[in-house]
Amino acid sequence: MKIYFSGSISGGREHAAIYQQLVAYLQTLGHEVLSAHVADPDVLEREKDTAPRLVFERDVAWVQQCDVMIAEVSTPSLGVGYEYGLAVQLDKPVLCVYRADLRISKMITGNPAPNLKVATYVTEAELERITLAFLEALTTAQA
Amino acid sequence: MKIYFSGSISGGREHAAIYQQLVAYLQTLGHEVLSAHVADPDVLEREKDTAPRLVFERDVAWVQQCDVMIAEVSTPSLGVGYEYGLAVQLDKPVLCVYRADLRISKMITGNPAPNLKVATYVTEAELERITLAFLEALTTAQA
Repeated sequence: MKIYFSGSISGGREHAAIYQQLVAYLQTLGHEVLSAHVADPDVLEREKDTAPRLVFERDVAWVQQCDVMIAEVSTPSLGVGYEYGLAVQLDKPVLCVYRADLRISKMITGNPAPNLKVATYVTEAELERITLAFLEALTTAQA
Repeated sequence: MKIYFSGSISGGREHAAIYQQLVAYLQTLGHEVLSAHVADPDVLEREKDTAPRLVFERDVAWVQQCDVMIAEVSTPSLGVGYEYGLAVQLDKPVLCVYRADLRISKMITGNPAPNLKVATYVTEAELERITLAFLEALTTAQA
């Protein structure tokens, strides 16, 4: 599947290692991650001179093209909040995952959209299990 | 006018004093701020036991009802990112303001929506001037 991975860039990179593990896991499963650059440790430096309009239009186009969005929402981020809302509105299946010891916005945890699943994880292995189960349920639903 | 003020709650409260000044300024101008609680220093404590679903549905209803959204986007926030996107999509006039010494998400600064204005400020007085000019331009356009 084509997956849009959403994670914080300007908002803070404290969970960048988790983004990297998760994107690598999705690629190992054979999926195409349109926004794999989000997991790149150098993304801030690499994109700092890219015109905001280009970034916006590229990312919105990817959200429109994707089959599924997976958002790691442990780090507060304007861009992730925007992208998750856009994907839900476009009726994409969306999985939002975050560390179980954190409290995140009720604008995510309180959203009753049927195409949205919100889950917490403790370990990396648990994050992978949640992600795999989410993707497998979609495949089963489509079959 | 009915104004939805958007500012970070779970994402961090480091600009809460600015939210308070801005909401008070809007009220002084005679506007109704639907979401004035965002500026309340005790909002985290006050809303911590409110069901996420109730917060989500109340805030979405207020965004739908408002004439204008003003978002202070200096603090990265999933909720603010979501709400700003919703307001732009609903064709509300939206003003996003942030401190000039910060870099924020290109998913805001790169959005070419004609009903969105993004501006930076240095002083509180400048923030008030930007806000007043934005609101006056709307009133002129409607007249």
